[in-house]
Amino acid sequence: MLNHFSKHPLWECHATLIRVAQGKEPADIVLRHATLVSVTTHELLEDADIAIAQGRIAYIGIEGHTAEHCIGEKTKVFDLAGTYVAPSFMDGHIHVESAMVGPAEYARAVVPHGTSAIMWDPHEAMNVAGMGALSALMEDAKRVPLKCYVTPGSCVPAVPGFEDTGATIDASDIHEAMKLDEVAGLGEMMNDPGVLSCAEGPLEEIEETLRAGKTVTGHYTMGDTDRGLEAYIASGVSCCHESVTREDALAKLRFGQYAQLREGSAWHNLEELAHAVTDRKIDTRFVNLVTDDTHPETLVSEGHLDRILRKAVSFGIDPITAIQMVTINVAQCFGLAGDLGSVTPGKCADIVVLDDLKDFHAHLVFIDGDLVAEDGRALFAPEPFAWPEEFLHTMHITDEISAETFRIPAVKKDGTAIADGAALVRVIASSAGSTLTKEEHLTVPVRDGALLADPAQDILKAFVFDRHHAGGRHACAFAKGFGIHGALAQTVAHDAHNLLVVGDSDKDMAIAARTLIASGGGEVAVQDGKILGKVALPLFGIMSTSPVEDVAHDVAGIERAWKKMGCTMPSPFMTMGLLSLACIPELRLTDRGLVDCCRYCFVPLLVEDEG
Amino acid sequence: MLNHFSKHPLWECHATLIRVAQGKEPADIVLRHATLVSVTTHELLEDADIAIAQGRIAYIGIEGHTAEHCIGEKTKVFDLAGTYVAPSFMDGHIHVESAMVGPAEYARAVVPHGTSAIMWDPHEAMNVAGMGALSALMEDAKRVPLKCYVTPGSCVPAVPGFEDTGATIDASDIHEAMKLDEVAGLGEMMNDPGVLSCAEGPLEEIEETLRAGKTVTGHYTMGDTDRGLEAYIASGVSCCHESVTREDALAKLRFGQYAQLREGSAWHNLEELAHAVTDRKIDTRFVNLVTDDTHPETLVSEGHLDRILRKAVSFGIDPITAIQMVTINVAQCFGLAGDLGSVTPGKCADIVVLDDLKDFHAHLVFIDGDLVAEDGRALFAPEPFAWPEEFLHTMHITDEISAETFRIPAVKKDGTAIADGAALVRVIASSAGSTLTKEEHLTVPVRDGALLADPAQDILKAFVFDRHHAGGRHACAFAKGFGIHGALAQTVAHDAHNLLVVGDSDKDMAIAARTLIASGGGEVAVQDGKILGKVALPLFGIMSTSPVEDVAHDVAGIERAWKKMGCTMPSPFMTMGLLSLACIPELRLTDRGLVDCCRYCFVPLLVEDEG
Repeated sequence: MLNHFSKHPLWECHATLIRVAQGKEPADIVLRHATLVSVTTHELLEDADIAIAQGRIAYIGIEGHTAEHCIGEKTKVFDLAGTYVAPSFMDGHIHVESAMVGPAEYARAVVPHGTSAIMWDPHEAMNVAGMGALSALMEDAKRVPLKCYVTPGSCVPAVPGFEDTGATIDASDIHEAMKLDEVAGLGEMMNDPGVLSCAEGPLEEIEETLRAGKTVTGHYTMGDTDRGLEAYIASGVSCCHESVTREDALAKLRFGQYAQLREGSAWHNLEELAHAVTDRKIDTRFVNLVTDDTHPETLVSEGHLDRILRKAVSFGIDPITAIQMVTINVAQCFGLAGDLGSVTPGKCADIVVLDDLKDFHAHLVFIDGDLVAEDGRALFAPEPFAWPEEFLHTMHITDEISAETFRIPAVKKDGTAIADGAALVRVIASSAGSTLTKEEHLTVPVRDGALLADPAQDILKAFVFDRHHAGGRHACAFAKGFGIHGALAQTVAHDAHNLLVVGDSDKDMAIAARTLIASGGGEVAVQDGKILGKVALPLFGIMSTSPVEDVAHDVAGIERAWKKMGCTMPSPFMTMGLLSLACIPELRLTDRGLVDCCRYCFVPLLVEDEG
Repeated sequence: MLNHFSKHPLWECHATLIRVAQGKEPADIVLRHATLVSVTTHELLEDADIAIAQGRIAYIGIEGHTAEHCIGEKTKVFDLAGTYVAPSFMDGHIHVESAMVGPAEYARAVVPHGTSAIMWDPHEAMNVAGMGALSALMEDAKRVPLKCYVTPGSCVPAVPGFEDTGATIDASDIHEAMKLDEVAGLGEMMNDPGVLSCAEGPLEEIEETLRAGKTVTGHYTMGDTDRGLEAYIASGVSCCHESVTREDALAKLRFGQYAQLREGSAWHNLEELAHAVTDRKIDTRFVNLVTDDTHPETLVSEGHLDRILRKAVSFGIDPITAIQMVTINVAQCFGLAGDLGSVTPGKCADIVVLDDLKDFHAHLVFIDGDLVAEDGRALFAPEPFAWPEEFLHTMHITDEISAETFRIPAVKKDGTAIADGAALVRVIASSAGSTLTKEEHLTVPVRDGALLADPAQDILKAFVFDRHHAGGRHACAFAKGFGIHGALAQTVAHDAHNLLVVGDSDKDMAIAARTLIASGGGEVAVQDGKILGKVALPLFGIMSTSPVEDVAHDVAGIERAWKKMGCTMPSPFMTMGLLSLACIPELRLTDRGLVDCCRYCFVPLLVEDEG
């Protein structure tokens, strides 16, 4: 019962709370003399006492009233003079997988930063191993105090027909998932084109979620903030974290959708999006601050929602308003405000004690009235989880991979060879801090009947191999924006998490690919035949079973390798991992080929092959 | 399906909305060129178009975008230039019974004022006829577009052991009621002393409601805004409309309870309570504006929530904020914001077109996309409802009533007679516009071995007869504050709705009582043997089966009679009807005797009998 998601439902313990509030029974814990951040009234209430019993808040002493009457012999009393007490933080949209660890380990990383609940879309792991992944991850999560609400992946595969995944999820799976208490809603509905064309699959999944009275989370990236966005919202999707402009976020708010302003490790949207709420005085109750994807190193060095709060305040958002955006607003978005999101009587005692409202350093963190973290250190340490063996062996590539595998024949659609010289090709252009790619048409060299990478123009080869099926497909393209010499490979390649290899050296690319096949997945950087950095991610091929600090250390190592190889991008592996993310504009590569992600069709590598 | 509570659940019509938004299918209705009141962002959006299909909103055209692409040959287009379009209004706490008509007729009265949904606590009718009343009222309500959500009476009787009612409701009834779609929560939990003492009955009813994921509505009148209020909130009661001071309302908001600021016909709390939100700049999302009780004459002459909005603005509340308090805030309070409370894509097209944001005159009212009222006139007219006969005959008094019945013997507890002269008695003191009474100790004349009324001091006799049981009890007391000569009687006597008779003339009192027994219940004013005014309320003895205008006319007549008889109180029958309301401080009279409503015990009429 650790995280489903209170010690007791309110109706099982309200009699105790009633007695404690009136001093007829002692509280378990009393917090004293802190300044209470009231997220229900947007106020600071000075010298507040808080009495806690059975994991819930029984009484708040303000305006000269104290909780002295709730203190008995066994009551633990904390003198918190000089600190701020706020509801602990809720992340309205995250993928634990991006932190490259399982949920219990993730909890160890984020709880000390003040986070007590996450709305987790495990669609990365579900793309690899379907409903089985969901069950195993939920089992791991049960062992820690973090409230890991789940929004099961709605789009597995993300763009059906355009990629091969390890599993598929349909409306009948969603129907079953909605019966679970831990399931707060539907995972991000990335198939926005499917919704707009009234495709049966996505609309049925939305129906199952709405019928269950739960929240459909969104992913709308089509740019049009008028008809397209409104059609998408009218389908029943009630929140979305994919805004990249202030206008887009404001449009969502005006159309009654929760705008989940994102500040991830790789995608930095908050500076722009903050303007949606600072440029004019609007009601912000429909605004959440979310991380979406956070890298292990970011978690270890910068934190989680505390990091976003710092940024929000630096971008001009009022600190109490910012706290509302990670507490009450999130709870209301998911229909959980009866239990979570405010420090008020009857609610779960999920509380963070902050030194100030600028750095948001979490001095103490309580979940369900238990002290679970102190000064950055988690006070719980779950044993390593016994993952089912099948989830530790998800690399099913059987074909031999050699340098020759990475040769791209210079042959047109009609079978005629292209003479040595140059050819105009489609190139996927990535840029730092953005989830979007651009389609560029550039010239690459042709030598010995093959299309080559062109380091001078920063044009690399990119390959995606289906890793979920023996004898699976692969496809190739060109990519720019990474600026490296050598080869990089990773199995964290959204959303199918196939094996993605990028580089300018066929030999290095082969080494990189073979290294990851051997390690069960992960990330690797190779240059001149030498492995410069590696992160082993054997769990579903996307997560480690090691402590987050070790993973962060390995990731830091590989990031140094990237830099050494010439890349200046922050979190380059996350941006690289989006080369195959076919649900977002403009051009992507899957194991089935190059996908135009605006028109949703395959397009040829050679520009002249078009039509 | 008229009011359960949309034409289609979103999932049954979202494909149509998606197509309409994109111009692939025509809308049923398009509203054009109005200023849209955005309650999600607290903004006015100029020159907005709104496209409606299948009773829901498909598209909003703002910022230069129009809904022209949604207009087909059969689309009805309304040019609303110069007007304001807002979500239509929701009353978060009302008793239809106070309007003295059934719900269908009530709908005809309030919908033209912009109201589209009510959270109705039918505890008056349920005190008379229990779950059977609930079913019959819900059947009547189904025939009109008004969304009559129900919060079944939690306290029937209101204060068990202190009065006789026509029915009792327990947790097993509530368990059954929670299965109904129309049931939005539990009716006002008046048994606040019971909650604070952890009495089984109220806590079990709260449990049934919380288990069903519905809202427990409150009624907290104990004054203490610290321990008592917090214990009450911790029990699970999430809204309350009984605040009478700004401090009390603010305390509720800080403790995470919805403060439902009331402005009824008889109780005028808003001028004071508005200060809770105007004195300091707080978040108002937890504030509702509610009517609680509205008299038929008020509905006919002043309106419903439009009336409260006018007052709110006159008391300094920003107009958009005030509209939020009767739309999105109410929807969120009851977990209905996915369907109701905002004019945004996917929501029910429950829309009011206002001439301005000061008078809030409703030019047009749409419910589920149907035009249901225009310029003060309902466009629907249900046939009279075929009420079960038993609900039209609820006066079960069998004892003969004569002037002698109203003689109060001047006898002490120990049986000794009081000599002629004077005696110190407990008097229930009422005052205009307040639900509270005061206990006063005053001297009344003793003549011929009987205690007399004393018109010179405005002290009247008051009698309450159990009308639900043949051969039932009755009890007597003294009351002041009404200032009349003659007799008044009514069967709208909260909460048991027994027969209440007040006066200074035993003969007139007997006539009044007999008149109501003959008419099946109602209100009557008698002076010097003559009936000066009468309202027949045969339905449960508290409601009419006539049109609301006729009831208002009769009520106006009886109010004129009151005035003529010397009373200066506004809505005096409502205040008089609270003489028996034993769930509110300080002193009340039920058919069982005088009740001290602070200590919850019976007290003797003679002060000297105490102890």
